[in-house]
Amino acid sequence: MRMFRKLLTLDEAEKVIRRHFKPKPLGVEEVPLLEAHNRVLGEDVVATLDIPPFNRSTVDGYAVKAADTFGADENRPVWLKVCGRVNVGEKPCTTVTHGSAAEIVTGAPMPEGADAVVMSENTKREDDDLYIYGAVAKDENVMKTGADIRKGETVLKAGRLLGSREIGVLAAIGTVKVKVYLIPRVAVLSTGAEVTEPGGKLTSGRIYDINAYSLSAAVSESGAKPVYLGVFPDDRAELEKALKRALASADVVVTSGGVSVGPKDIMPQTVDSLGEPGVIVSGIAVKPGKPTTVAVVDEKLLFSLPGHPASALLIFHLLASPIIRLMSGREVHEAAEVKAFVAMRMFPAKGRRTFITVKLKRDKANRLVAEPVPTGLSGAITTLAHADGFVEIAENVQFVDAGEEVKVRLFRNLEEGLL
Amino acid sequence: MRMFRKLLTLDEAEKVIRRHFKPKPLGVEEVPLLEAHNRVLGEDVVATLDIPPFNRSTVDGYAVKAADTFGADENRPVWLKVCGRVNVGEKPCTTVTHGSAAEIVTGAPMPEGADAVVMSENTKREDDDLYIYGAVAKDENVMKTGADIRKGETVLKAGRLLGSREIGVLAAIGTVKVKVYLIPRVAVLSTGAEVTEPGGKLTSGRIYDINAYSLSAAVSESGAKPVYLGVFPDDRAELEKALKRALASADVVVTSGGVSVGPKDIMPQTVDSLGEPGVIVSGIAVKPGKPTTVAVVDEKLLFSLPGHPASALLIFHLLASPIIRLMSGREVHEAAEVKAFVAMRMFPAKGRRTFITVKLKRDKANRLVAEPVPTGLSGAITTLAHADGFVEIAENVQFVDAGEEVKVRLFRNLEEGLL
Repeated sequence: MRMFRKLLTLDEAEKVIRRHFKPKPLGVEEVPLLEAHNRVLGEDVVATLDIPPFNRSTVDGYAVKAADTFGADENRPVWLKVCGRVNVGEKPCTTVTHGSAAEIVTGAPMPEGADAVVMSENTKREDDDLYIYGAVAKDENVMKTGADIRKGETVLKAGRLLGSREIGVLAAIGTVKVKVYLIPRVAVLSTGAEVTEPGGKLTSGRIYDINAYSLSAAVSESGAKPVYLGVFPDDRAELEKALKRALASADVVVTSGGVSVGPKDIMPQTVDSLGEPGVIVSGIAVKPGKPTTVAVVDEKLLFSLPGHPASALLIFHLLASPIIRLMSGREVHEAAEVKAFVAMRMFPAKGRRTFITVKLKRDKANRLVAEPVPTGLSGAITTLAHADGFVEIAENVQFVDAGEEVKVRLFRNLEEGLL
Repeated sequence: MRMFRKLLTLDEAEKVIRRHFKPKPLGVEEVPLLEAHNRVLGEDVVATLDIPPFNRSTVDGYAVKAADTFGADENRPVWLKVCGRVNVGEKPCTTVTHGSAAEIVTGAPMPEGADAVVMSENTKREDDDLYIYGAVAKDENVMKTGADIRKGETVLKAGRLLGSREIGVLAAIGTVKVKVYLIPRVAVLSTGAEVTEPGGKLTSGRIYDINAYSLSAAVSESGAKPVYLGVFPDDRAELEKALKRALASADVVVTSGGVSVGPKDIMPQTVDSLGEPGVIVSGIAVKPGKPTTVAVVDEKLLFSLPGHPASALLIFHLLASPIIRLMSGREVHEAAEVKAFVAMRMFPAKGRRTFITVKLKRDKANRLVAEPVPTGLSGAITTLAHADGFVEIAENVQFVDAGEEVKVRLFRNLEEGLL
């Protein structure tokens, strides 16, 4: 492990991480179209046919030669002879010649010889005699072959998130299976002698694990699949075994706890011993989250987050989530921001980028006000759950005064980024 | 089927639907906490223990009686005798009396007799002699029993969407399984003589099905599970069988196609024959989507959407999605809006609420401009996929002039509402 003279800033930490690890999709897999929703397209998709594949009527009416209708108006209808009928889904068996028309329904293919459709509303029919009360131009009420998609055209590009509209485009060109980026696997484990898995009996001095659960959910929110590994004691040999298993079974590893300076905080040493280059970030000038450790082992990223649930989640959102999203082929998701007035003076930690959790309220003048809520204490997860977002205070700011307007980044939106 | 003298407005249609059908969750199921992410809590959750379950040190340092430290400062330290040590996860075996202190680490339980913790930084230790260079108040650096969550307290209410923070709260109180609302099942089927399932051979005059795929994805986006039933021909007997199967296998049915006035558009009649009250909305004064039909059969909702892919998706978002979201226990999701200037004069359809699909661009002055894109033609799904949102024009508006500022509702956000 290198010696670190001073803490990296958050920006420096991000740069160091990106220098050692270039986040990119891990490969592609083929999935049925019905399972492709909310996946990310892993290849450019080229249409192998024109859409529509034939000239199509867009109305119910009569397929005609447009020239035959010229001069028709409400007082002087044009007379044509109905020579047949075209239904949807059928090859037209009739041909339209000068002086004739074919009955046609919406979506049916244009019969040979016809180049426009007169809407039913503008006609009167008596047996096979058709009176047309309005002229149509060439191609009127016709959707031409390839008007929507041209054969050979790239309809969707790699990296596109497949929502309902994109799935529709893929169906239109007859796609059965689609290549999408692999979903990264992110191993999540907690450490701490006092930490017990939910469901276990809580003996004296022990608490239930929060982080492996909340971070697994945050992994899902980042477009990846959590691999829950559970809780490990502060025992170097056991931890080493668990981390090796985590590295073998996942693309990214996220741990929490064991990174402070306490005598039992053995995470950084253990992580560093696993391989080269080992620890690349050892502490960051942020509050909360100062003891955050980041390592690269066998070209895999390993985030060791603090044990405090609120700190762990915040640092996950700031540092880990953007990288995991890029690995899943997604865009980095910026939290939605609202502007609010600060309810009371907020002091940052000296020299550290400070994130203050806030609740949003309306004051008497109906202005949005950000009220700090304390989540600094270990385990204050409820406070976090009932908060709305956080305010970021830069390293060089002395304080943010009551009444100042600040940007509040919203938790809910961060979480909804993706599921 | 009742006779409808004139088309309902969109607002009237919504009211009629709500009069016949009260959307609410369908029941609850119990799932493991690790699978509860992005589900909706189906019951109020009451804490069965205090969190933390014991008084906890929030720092590394020495547990003391606060009164013993009064008067201590950098020049005149207070001397105490170290009487033991408390680790995390252990029941303290030492008791702090006047004149003594116990070494303690972050998260460890406070030993009997101690009521505050002095941070290590403010002490000097020589063997068992401890010099304290700063006074602490009672409870300083201590997180008290129940400070985060009180036993008996309702920590999360039914209806809460379970994101990473809520999952953390549930883990904190030792939750293993959690009651969540059932995910509604929504059957999706397409009709049309010309419609072929993707993968099938496209014979003359036929096109691939889009709607069953795009609508299935839209169902997922609304918090429900799509039940894909495929494509059915315009045959009354077959359609009736398919719809009965759909009603039996799902909580809501969404069909597309077969609702226009063409001779083969048999959907409304078929739907109406299935049970009481049958069709409750037969056409809506909107564009696109005018032929939309809504029925209630055996207390289940059945939406018959138009066959045009863009119309079907729009009407699904406007009418069906809010109801499906409420049935999944979620809040109705409003599309994010941006303000933009209209690029060219836009005309609504006379007397109909009109939705115009637009693409957003920046003009030379860097203002956001909404440019209408044509999706009115059957199958123009690509145009829809590359559009950004839509502008709504009220029934009584003559036109929206070029340069007017309008609200654009964003597709992407509608889709990201939920997955």
